[in-house]
Amino acid sequence: MKNLKLICTNCGKEYLIDKFKVRCDECNEPLEVEEIKVGKIRNENILTQSIFDRYRDFMPFSSFDNSLTLSEGFTPLVKPNRLAEEIGIKDVYFKNETQNPTWSFKDRGTSACIIHAAKIGYKRIGTVSTGNMAPSVAAYGRKNNLQTYVLVNSNIPDEKLNPIAIYSPHLIKVDGDYGNLYYKSLEIGKKNDIYFMNSDVPFRVEGSKTIAFEVCEQLNFEMPDYVIVPTSAGGNVRGIEKGFREFENAGLIKTIPKIIVAQALGCSPIVKAFDDGKETIERFSNPDTIAHAIENPYPPSGNQVLRMLKRNEGLAVAVNEEEIINAQRLQAEEGIFGQPASAVALAALIKLREQNKIKENDSVVCIVTGSGLKYTAAFKKHDLEASDCKLENLSHMLKKEKS
Amino acid sequence: MKNLKLICTNCGKEYLIDKFKVRCDECNEPLEVEEIKVGKIRNENILTQSIFDRYRDFMPFSSFDNSLTLSEGFTPLVKPNRLAEEIGIKDVYFKNETQNPTWSFKDRGTSACIIHAAKIGYKRIGTVSTGNMAPSVAAYGRKNNLQTYVLVNSNIPDEKLNPIAIYSPHLIKVDGDYGNLYYKSLEIGKKNDIYFMNSDVPFRVEGSKTIAFEVCEQLNFEMPDYVIVPTSAGGNVRGIEKGFREFENAGLIKTIPKIIVAQALGCSPIVKAFDDGKETIERFSNPDTIAHAIENPYPPSGNQVLRMLKRNEGLAVAVNEEEIINAQRLQAEEGIFGQPASAVALAALIKLREQNKIKENDSVVCIVTGSGLKYTAAFKKHDLEASDCKLENLSHMLKKEKS
Repeated sequence: MKNLKLICTNCGKEYLIDKFKVRCDECNEPLEVEEIKVGKIRNENILTQSIFDRYRDFMPFSSFDNSLTLSEGFTPLVKPNRLAEEIGIKDVYFKNETQNPTWSFKDRGTSACIIHAAKIGYKRIGTVSTGNMAPSVAAYGRKNNLQTYVLVNSNIPDEKLNPIAIYSPHLIKVDGDYGNLYYKSLEIGKKNDIYFMNSDVPFRVEGSKTIAFEVCEQLNFEMPDYVIVPTSAGGNVRGIEKGFREFENAGLIKTIPKIIVAQALGCSPIVKAFDDGKETIERFSNPDTIAHAIENPYPPSGNQVLRMLKRNEGLAVAVNEEEIINAQRLQAEEGIFGQPASAVALAALIKLREQNKIKENDSVVCIVTGSGLKYTAAFKKHDLEASDCKLENLSHMLKKEKS
Repeated sequence: MKNLKLICTNCGKEYLIDKFKVRCDECNEPLEVEEIKVGKIRNENILTQSIFDRYRDFMPFSSFDNSLTLSEGFTPLVKPNRLAEEIGIKDVYFKNETQNPTWSFKDRGTSACIIHAAKIGYKRIGTVSTGNMAPSVAAYGRKNNLQTYVLVNSNIPDEKLNPIAIYSPHLIKVDGDYGNLYYKSLEIGKKNDIYFMNSDVPFRVEGSKTIAFEVCEQLNFEMPDYVIVPTSAGGNVRGIEKGFREFENAGLIKTIPKIIVAQALGCSPIVKAFDDGKETIERFSNPDTIAHAIENPYPPSGNQVLRMLKRNEGLAVAVNEEEIINAQRLQAEEGIFGQPASAVALAALIKLREQNKIKENDSVVCIVTGSGLKYTAAFKKHDLEASDCKLENLSHMLKKEKS
């Protein structure tokens, strides 16, 4: 490990980086790895390089065993063909995180945590998740022969349970207050030497930085005006913003894009606090949205996301169910089929453009966080069409429709 | 387009490359783009380069509009941590094609066909598929404002229909002899100016070459002994073998790996002909396997695959349902969850090693063709486990299991 500190995002208290430590003993706010000030990109052949090789100057570890990873990251930044014009803005890009090993952005952070866990000697890992993080931790844990505990909600449907179970982790349906399990798991982990790589632990945030690094490279270091991030616990958006900050520190980019936190109206604790001008979030009552992957009523990094938005001069916006479904389809029609939670970014863009908060000369990057195949129940919300045709009529049918 | 010919893989008759032409007028065998003899890798930053940029010396087109693509390819080659030792061979690698834009290898070939279609002026495209190719063509067609006809079997289950329909193609359930639709669609396409980018059309084969190119780079041009490819129509394995041949032509590699065609025992027309020493395949009766994505009873490139295996001194092997399911789980436990058809490669490796046809000093690359999320019915075949725990007992449970 490099000689860096873990620092409380709120009170600044410092901790050792070679311990598994998530929150401040003083104020219970999330810790983060000390900001990197200098560095360069190690521009080698990506086909034989991992994200942590390429960006090692900006990682808290400089060397690591590559066999721990599944070659996550290096995902495409795709420019849709019609959407920018339809929305009425200069440029829009999709950072397609669905092309990761377990088909979500979570793999970057999981991999960073696995490397950290190996360095500090943990043989047992865990996570609290019924969403994208669960299969990700299960996959990396099992690959690396770690005792891997995935704690899911007791009412998890089979559609979500099976894609976790296939990796053969210790899969545990927890009967009780799942909302409190984030904190409970950290306690249990501390007592039993289990590295709970939950949604916003410091090394997961470090993994998410690589999304920002890649976007910088992919846009030839010409920064977009906005980056929109579907936000749940807050770990991913924190990592992305930190990535831009560190590239600015190192002189690789001149400005930091404004960050937009996008949530579903049905579960929008950060947006609510942001709109009310508060400094702390409150637990969101009766969360209910099709964007399950970001349905966290009490985000553990919520307060830090509010602080981050203040410094960044960013925005927070919530979109309703219809807007999410509409955006999911629009995105698919540009060739990128994300899960509903992913479509929240595009839905937010459309809404902010309609409100003229995003202007016609702006350029925007939307983070597409996970694959649409992960939540097939959403198909029911779409008016999906297929026609029937007898083989003997096919030639006529295809002729008739000729434009 | 470069000044190249389309050449019949059987009789050698030549055709123009700037026409949409799939099979020989003389012998009805598949055409392929003339072999490239010289070229080099354009080693730029992959984050801002497409596969067709990087390998443009080996593509039939040298320039193209990058907005046609979805940044497919550049997928990881992953070395599992336990499997090589368990199987008793030197090295095994998984080429993880599940990390493509629609989560299968098909995107490479679809993109190459889209580029070709644009160059020769087609506004309408189509495909015959109920498997991975259907969503791939739907995604790329819709992105590029092409009239896109996806012809599926009339009894296609919703699980497969919806992930195609979400991209909003003209989705047509064809009632009639679906087995004959490959040929019928080419006829209809010819009459109605529709570019049917079916499973083994010449430019799809060109797209698949990039799998071989990447494997060469990822192994630092040290060739493995074998590359195992789950095989259905035959287009992908043809492309992979052609890729190695062209890199050998160009002096980039010294030897070509032996190719192993892997099929499910329940639908193995190529393996059957190979075992019987025949030069042509016969239609496989009553195909039935969980590896639906490769369940093609009468592969249109079957005869050419037999010719290719002869020249390459390759093998063909079939594996049963239990072997497929077992391999799918083993692969998932190395962090890579492929659909059953993808697991056929690993199942073939295990079988050939048991038969000592693959030796302990061999190194092998398995092509993992598509994501396990695409065929969730396979979960039922696995003994997937989860335990229940009350929150108050969790700490004890995690302590108890401590190793």
